[in-house]
Amino acid sequence: MGEFDLIDTYFRWDSVSDNGRDADGVIIGVGDDAAVLQLDNKQQFVTSIDTLIAGVHFPEQTPPAAIAHKALTVNLSDLAAMGAKAKWFTLALTLPELDHAWLGDFSASLKALAKETSVALVGGDTTRGPLSISIQVMGTVENNQALLRSGANPGDQLFVSGTLGDAAVGLASIQDRDKGADTFTETDNAYCEARLNYPTARLKEAEIIKGFATACIDISDGLLQDVGHILKKAQVSAVIDPAKLPLSESMKKLAGDKAIHYALHGGDDYELLFTVPKRDCDAFIQAVSEQLSTPITLIGEIVSHIGSEHQDVGMITDPQGVSLQGNGYNHFAENNTNNRSDNSRVAGSKNQESKHDE
Amino acid sequence: MGEFDLIDTYFRWDSVSDNGRDADGVIIGVGDDAAVLQLDNKQQFVTSIDTLIAGVHFPEQTPPAAIAHKALTVNLSDLAAMGAKAKWFTLALTLPELDHAWLGDFSASLKALAKETSVALVGGDTTRGPLSISIQVMGTVENNQALLRSGANPGDQLFVSGTLGDAAVGLASIQDRDKGADTFTETDNAYCEARLNYPTARLKEAEIIKGFATACIDISDGLLQDVGHILKKAQVSAVIDPAKLPLSESMKKLAGDKAIHYALHGGDDYELLFTVPKRDCDAFIQAVSEQLSTPITLIGEIVSHIGSEHQDVGMITDPQGVSLQGNGYNHFAENNTNNRSDNSRVAGSKNQESKHDE
Repeated sequence: MGEFDLIDTYFRWDSVSDNGRDADGVIIGVGDDAAVLQLDNKQQFVTSIDTLIAGVHFPEQTPPAAIAHKALTVNLSDLAAMGAKAKWFTLALTLPELDHAWLGDFSASLKALAKETSVALVGGDTTRGPLSISIQVMGTVENNQALLRSGANPGDQLFVSGTLGDAAVGLASIQDRDKGADTFTETDNAYCEARLNYPTARLKEAEIIKGFATACIDISDGLLQDVGHILKKAQVSAVIDPAKLPLSESMKKLAGDKAIHYALHGGDDYELLFTVPKRDCDAFIQAVSEQLSTPITLIGEIVSHIGSEHQDVGMITDPQGVSLQGNGYNHFAENNTNNRSDNSRVAGSKNQESKHDE
Repeated sequence: MGEFDLIDTYFRWDSVSDNGRDADGVIIGVGDDAAVLQLDNKQQFVTSIDTLIAGVHFPEQTPPAAIAHKALTVNLSDLAAMGAKAKWFTLALTLPELDHAWLGDFSASLKALAKETSVALVGGDTTRGPLSISIQVMGTVENNQALLRSGANPGDQLFVSGTLGDAAVGLASIQDRDKGADTFTETDNAYCEARLNYPTARLKEAEIIKGFATACIDISDGLLQDVGHILKKAQVSAVIDPAKLPLSESMKKLAGDKAIHYALHGGDDYELLFTVPKRDCDAFIQAVSEQLSTPITLIGEIVSHIGSEHQDVGMITDPQGVSLQGNGYNHFAENNTNNRSDNSRVAGSKNQESKHDE
């Protein structure tokens, strides 16, 4: 049973009487980047929750400032991917012990990012136990303006913000150093590690993107895996040109001939992946060049089918028609024999999670 | 450092520029049963989050159906204590392994309670790690109608719903049995254990209470501790008559001469504790008798000071002026030498938590 089967089996309650996604006021329930709830006749409420666990989502020795920053960012990123304005958040913090230095750093970092992104801490729960952090971000969007995963159409162009694979290379860098490797270069390793530990939610970029995109998701599990969600929702396929993937200089230097592999499979970049109708691309690119400094890169196209024989929903090939997909990583598979990039998260065997508002 | 100091030090960000409780749209932030957020000119959004951790908030062998029921109830209870209508919830579930029998029971119980209370599951996050459950419940209340902890006045009468101490005696019953004691009586132990494992959020009662109460809180940490929150907010004291505390027959039978002790100190009952102005008490009691079957009991009165010398804010005495307070339990104290009822939660040494939206 995979992660999506787990959700379908146990936590996707569809009917009104089951109080699932068709219940009163639930516009989008389980199964997108965030939930969308009807408030009144003008606004919708958007909320996302993510839990980070020590040893699963970050190495045990990760600085508390990085943990706080990342825990808030991964949720802000979900709201960005919905085109929503993030306004408030709650924190459920479980700590093994009362460590003032740790709490001081954690709190200062969280506060700094809250201030920078204009979201307010409105409540929470602090418990003693194994280190974990659950943050729920809440925000609003104008009625029916939420950017979903489900709107991609054949012919839409596929774009991505920023650069890909940096965080995965940053994690490999930390792990190499932990093993005693003397490979640290001041600038390149530090850059990739900062991309892992201090990711940026693309809130500002989302404000421009939401005016043009038909579908959007943030890249947390890796490009191919997250493109897959868009393809599955719209029952389409995609062509992606690996030569066009945006790569940072530092990442290319450190990853060498594995750079494309990291860009396709590496998680934790929190860049936005989205589709724009072909006819709107010129206007979109114009708006981007006028209003954003973050690179926005065209990497491929949505297609209705691959090859001439039949429709293969969810196929991803390069422009020559060669599949880019290995076996997908199945978070909750009991015998996981496939080959996901083992550097994209902390530990393959522990990296078993599924997100039902994703 | 106690739990409230921890929150004050690290997570109470007051100023607008710090994005704390005075930030845009935050009516009530950290420090009440739930947060209250301004949505539009008619409605406010109310939200509460609680984490339950195996071995801390429930014994490891607790049935999954009970864990699910309790995790949702403790949050519904917070919304009841705010006089808010609960509408939606999210679930962050961390599981040590994929156990279908466990998940099936957990899911069925959660779904049944969601249906019964008309709240919809709208998202979440499932992660592999040590068993813990974070639920965040969201709801609405009409503008400025939220029932806070802060409105008690001298002369107000102190009421409590249901019966007290049942859950603490239920926990003692389970622990005794685990130690091999042969004390289980079909009805009495089962009753108290059900009160621990399947508590009821007083949502229906809250609808009546909110029309009359000046302050309200749900009893999760024990009567004296939770009365303390109301007293501190209003800078007042209270007289409580131990002889008037509502006790179930089963609890009295099992607790014997420790019954009052359990009723004063035992946590996890999730009854509502609230104050009603003296002049409104007749109308309130009338409304209760017409519309509720749950017992509502007058247990004491808010007073401005105890004794003739000076004002002792937060003092709680019996009608003869004898203090009912031992040393309060300090969840995060590093050298906890005081004497909280050691049966009110799973394990004294692990019971170290603090709730900043409480």
